[in-house]
Amino acid sequence: MQLSKRILTLTDGGSDGWDVYRRARSMAEAGHPVIELTIGDHDVPTDPAILDAMHAAALDGSVGYPIVPGLPELRDAIAARVQARTGAPTTRDNVVIMPGGQGALFSAEAATCDHGDTALFVEPYYATYPGSIRGVGATPVPVPALPEHDFQPQASTILAAARETGARSLLINTPHNPTGVVYTMKTLRGIADVCKATGMWLISDEVYDTQVWDGAHLSPRALPGMAERTLVIGSMSKSHAMTGSRIGWIVGPEEAVEHLINLSTHTTYGLPAYIQEAALFALQEGAELEAEITGRFRHRRALALEVLSKSNRIHTVPSHGAMYLMLDIRATGLSGEDFANLLLDEEEIGVMPGESFGRTAAGHVRIALTVDEAVLEDALRRLVAFAERLAHAA
Amino acid sequence: MQLSKRILTLTDGGSDGWDVYRRARSMAEAGHPVIELTIGDHDVPTDPAILDAMHAAALDGSVGYPIVPGLPELRDAIAARVQARTGAPTTRDNVVIMPGGQGALFSAEAATCDHGDTALFVEPYYATYPGSIRGVGATPVPVPALPEHDFQPQASTILAAARETGARSLLINTPHNPTGVVYTMKTLRGIADVCKATGMWLISDEVYDTQVWDGAHLSPRALPGMAERTLVIGSMSKSHAMTGSRIGWIVGPEEAVEHLINLSTHTTYGLPAYIQEAALFALQEGAELEAEITGRFRHRRALALEVLSKSNRIHTVPSHGAMYLMLDIRATGLSGEDFANLLLDEEEIGVMPGESFGRTAAGHVRIALTVDEAVLEDALRRLVAFAERLAHAA
Repeated sequence: MQLSKRILTLTDGGSDGWDVYRRARSMAEAGHPVIELTIGDHDVPTDPAILDAMHAAALDGSVGYPIVPGLPELRDAIAARVQARTGAPTTRDNVVIMPGGQGALFSAEAATCDHGDTALFVEPYYATYPGSIRGVGATPVPVPALPEHDFQPQASTILAAARETGARSLLINTPHNPTGVVYTMKTLRGIADVCKATGMWLISDEVYDTQVWDGAHLSPRALPGMAERTLVIGSMSKSHAMTGSRIGWIVGPEEAVEHLINLSTHTTYGLPAYIQEAALFALQEGAELEAEITGRFRHRRALALEVLSKSNRIHTVPSHGAMYLMLDIRATGLSGEDFANLLLDEEEIGVMPGESFGRTAAGHVRIALTVDEAVLEDALRRLVAFAERLAHAA
Repeated sequence: MQLSKRILTLTDGGSDGWDVYRRARSMAEAGHPVIELTIGDHDVPTDPAILDAMHAAALDGSVGYPIVPGLPELRDAIAARVQARTGAPTTRDNVVIMPGGQGALFSAEAATCDHGDTALFVEPYYATYPGSIRGVGATPVPVPALPEHDFQPQASTILAAARETGARSLLINTPHNPTGVVYTMKTLRGIADVCKATGMWLISDEVYDTQVWDGAHLSPRALPGMAERTLVIGSMSKSHAMTGSRIGWIVGPEEAVEHLINLSTHTTYGLPAYIQEAALFALQEGAELEAEITGRFRHRRALALEVLSKSNRIHTVPSHGAMYLMLDIRATGLSGEDFANLLLDEEEIGVMPGESFGRTAAGHVRIALTVDEAVLEDALRRLVAFAERLAHAA
């Protein structure tokens, strides 16, 4: 029986290189002492206090059909947080609760693009971006951000792509996965100007907004004239180590939020209320916990930068956020994929080839800072020595 | 800023009559002693044993990114259950976990219909059906099931609609919301024949499959030649009073399931693993609990039928399943909507107008058996007397 073209072509032309990730997983499952620096899942579980709050809410009766837009108190708490952190006026009516950042992203694309429309996204990119656009029947078009620009997308490139395609929207991500780059005010102003000039929606994925190691998180929604055309993707996954709870949101104009609530009624009929209660608890009581999570990554990043600074073969992309570092390994003469495969074979260390995130990140590998410090330090020392050996062999 | 046509027209031409529901809710919230027989949410919460299993799984570490297809053990348990209950051979590879019946429904439509395609659904219908089809860019076309056929859809009507529209799929629901009707083997054979003759997918919403009061649940997927063209929607909401946990699934051909897993990666990135563990616990340990829930509705239904049988003005639609009864109140001379509004004003009893579910249920009202027996009996006695007064006044 014939399935829809949409679902059959969802990941057409998708990035390759995830083989390394799967191979590392298989080796680990088979008992090999693989150090996995591949994906962005926390190495510490959700805090038991949050899980206890969830259980208490469930036992207390938060187990019937949820209120689809989200609990009013949770929407209030998110609105207050967004306003405090970005300066952009935000109320409950600007917030709709969604099933994780991924659910929010899919819905944001659905709200802005029809079948046959074009949607832009920045390359390198998080794996699901093109498929999320294809899933709503639109055509994804990458806008390259290049190593020579420190992976900051250039306004002129975006403008050219927008003019050529008549795109309805642009999807960005800051702090950025996979590079760890935080978009500068200059970059964001350039993006905002292009969106306003071309009438595009901006979909701004800010799920790493608590992971900024130098400076502060900047949200383009706070720039003049942008609140009315920006949908911000947020989530509890990274900030509160709640990846598995699949709770996120969209912040946007009231009219868009109203329609997104209607969409949510039809895509999922809302999120478990007990998870929403747990998220509310985490936002209200979790400042210390949040700081602890952030502090852990800050410390690991400093450690990693120190080890990597010893290498003449590896150039670390200047990054200021997220739980990743992107390493330029072109001096070794290998592709990111070959480097990652060899590193896995010889050192049993798993990293993601840059090619997995699009061709602009070719010759790079991404490391996730999601392991214990001692393990991380050992892995990176071995990675540096490995690169050195490669260079000598060349 | 212009939103997508998809999202702006999601509920165009939607059924009306939900005003009565909202008015009943408001009155109840304002402190009026309204008896709400409106929606299908359980009046008993999820069993604490299930919630405890969920909490234990979360504390035990099931809090990272979920496996998108669903926990293998849960997929196995659902496959075994479906095979045992329907006779259709089913394995893990036929099952993908989805965010509730609604999430499953949306994904099933996305898997079978592209933009511009037509999808059939039976009227009267559950409120979200047309919007779920519009949400994937397709055109919903109702197939009327009439009171004079006891709301059993007729093969000839479906065939005519399929031929006229070239529809890609037909969505049915048995046991049926809102009427409580259980499709007969004759009805299902007729549907199966039409699907095979026209090349349509059958999307079979069977979320009430444990609520069959006479006879057994029949799944059209078990009919010859249907497993390859049927996507069954299932859920823990009704069977285990887990509405708020938003856990459901699709059972279908392996190839469809593979692509649905890919879709799920892009729409939600899976469901919380601790909820899946709770569902597994409920399926493995919950037979008694399930029987208790079923028994409660069986008892209420018998009670309701007895009270309603006293009335000459109200004809109860011959139904054998689900947590609803559909009352034909045409003998009162009122529309379902006027009847429901007057009943709310005069007796503070909330029921759903048949018109809310499509015009073929005009002149009917739906009652949900979701209140305590004593309350239900009192409400129905007053409803019968109310109908009597209306008839005398006419």
